[in-house]
Amino acid sequence: MEKQGNNEFIIEGRNAVIEAFRAGKPVDRVYILDGCQDGPVLTIKREARKQDAQIKYVPKERLDQLSETGRHQGVIAWAAAYEYADIETMLRQAKEKDEPPFLFLLDNIEDPHNLGAIIRTANLAGAHGVIIPKNRAVGLTATVARTSAGALNYTPVAKVTNLAKTIEELKEKGLWFVCADMDGDRMYDLDLRGPIGLVIGSEGEGVGRLVKEKCDMTAAIPMKGNIDSLNASVAAGVLAYEIVRQRLM
Amino acid sequence: MEKQGNNEFIIEGRNAVIEAFRAGKPVDRVYILDGCQDGPVLTIKREARKQDAQIKYVPKERLDQLSETGRHQGVIAWAAAYEYADIETMLRQAKEKDEPPFLFLLDNIEDPHNLGAIIRTANLAGAHGVIIPKNRAVGLTATVARTSAGALNYTPVAKVTNLAKTIEELKEKGLWFVCADMDGDRMYDLDLRGPIGLVIGSEGEGVGRLVKEKCDMTAAIPMKGNIDSLNASVAAGVLAYEIVRQRLM
Repeated sequence: MEKQGNNEFIIEGRNAVIEAFRAGKPVDRVYILDGCQDGPVLTIKREARKQDAQIKYVPKERLDQLSETGRHQGVIAWAAAYEYADIETMLRQAKEKDEPPFLFLLDNIEDPHNLGAIIRTANLAGAHGVIIPKNRAVGLTATVARTSAGALNYTPVAKVTNLAKTIEELKEKGLWFVCADMDGDRMYDLDLRGPIGLVIGSEGEGVGRLVKEKCDMTAAIPMKGNIDSLNASVAAGVLAYEIVRQRLM
Repeated sequence: MEKQGNNEFIIEGRNAVIEAFRAGKPVDRVYILDGCQDGPVLTIKREARKQDAQIKYVPKERLDQLSETGRHQGVIAWAAAYEYADIETMLRQAKEKDEPPFLFLLDNIEDPHNLGAIIRTANLAGAHGVIIPKNRAVGLTATVARTSAGALNYTPVAKVTNLAKTIEELKEKGLWFVCADMDGDRMYDLDLRGPIGLVIGSEGEGVGRLVKEKCDMTAAIPMKGNIDSLNASVAAGVLAYEIVRQRLM
């Protein structure tokens, strides 16, 4: 028998499920009563496809068995209970591990696959957290959770209103900021060993001007080829591992 | 008016277009006669969606205008003319640039997004080509071309029957092979400066046993986190840039 894990919760009833989708909750799976085809159910199916949630058609008995409230109205969704963290928690965890803070800041990463892959990289590179802006950027959807390959369960993600302001506040706490930029200094020539925030921009636009102005260093990945730029999650990985290398040396 | 570029060709007629899809040709776009709904056209629409090709519904006049043969039967497809290269060409290009050969070998990368991102990385890291096996692995589809962000126009890709045999042949030409493996030596401790082939495995299975046995070195990316592995294209990027760093130092 399937059982929801510690990190999942269920949402019951048509309106509740539609609301969950609209609020951007990371719905992994929707159970729908076999043969159900009315308006709200069609809306739920459309949202599920849009957000890459799995749809399962099940008999009434199965829904009754899954239901916690007994009022599922033919629809039950499973959502991941990913909660946004705060930056204080990240800094405290760095301190507990006796490591200089290492944070990722993502300026307008809009592709959920890239966001998931970057959270995965942040986890393995030993970063203490990932900070994303509230506006424009993608949130913690089911696709992000899946492409993070479990990293979302370990690496805290914080959402902030203004990335430039957050950088200022963190500078007061001793962090240095480096942003990825083609025209910057060669990454090997920078000292990236202290408490650091790595700022990664979107593929199309790079790091925004206001955010870039707040950074202490700009790091360039050496490029030998014919095209413009690496995939955003690959660039984040290459830069993060230059930080890892310098910290290990 | 739209015009096909040097790297595109058109395919006309229902069977020819269905064949093109089935042969894995990188179809970018399909023009279908407005209102056409018969069996073969439905098959074409299904294949187009499966392979991420754009579908455009156009009037007969537009199709007649696009057609080269006058026998489009209501369907014209645009495909990218990506051709597989041979390994000799890659080695010759390295020689012409007076660089030690640097090749990527991909053992069963099945995700077209990963393949595209890796070709993109190969281009920017200055590799001379990418080698993929004929069986199982994904080919040069439209999705690969798109996620390569143009790199497919510059970086040659060769398809070989047996990756282990290809490694043996290239060893006779002086190349050393390093494969990515969690249990390998820390990548910073290896000498990766000479003529080199970087072998990357699939996310699920890593590099296959037969291929791994042919490799001279196994390189591990240091992992600090809680999860198993990086995304395959991120891992390829991190390893490729360790090679770039050592070559630049």
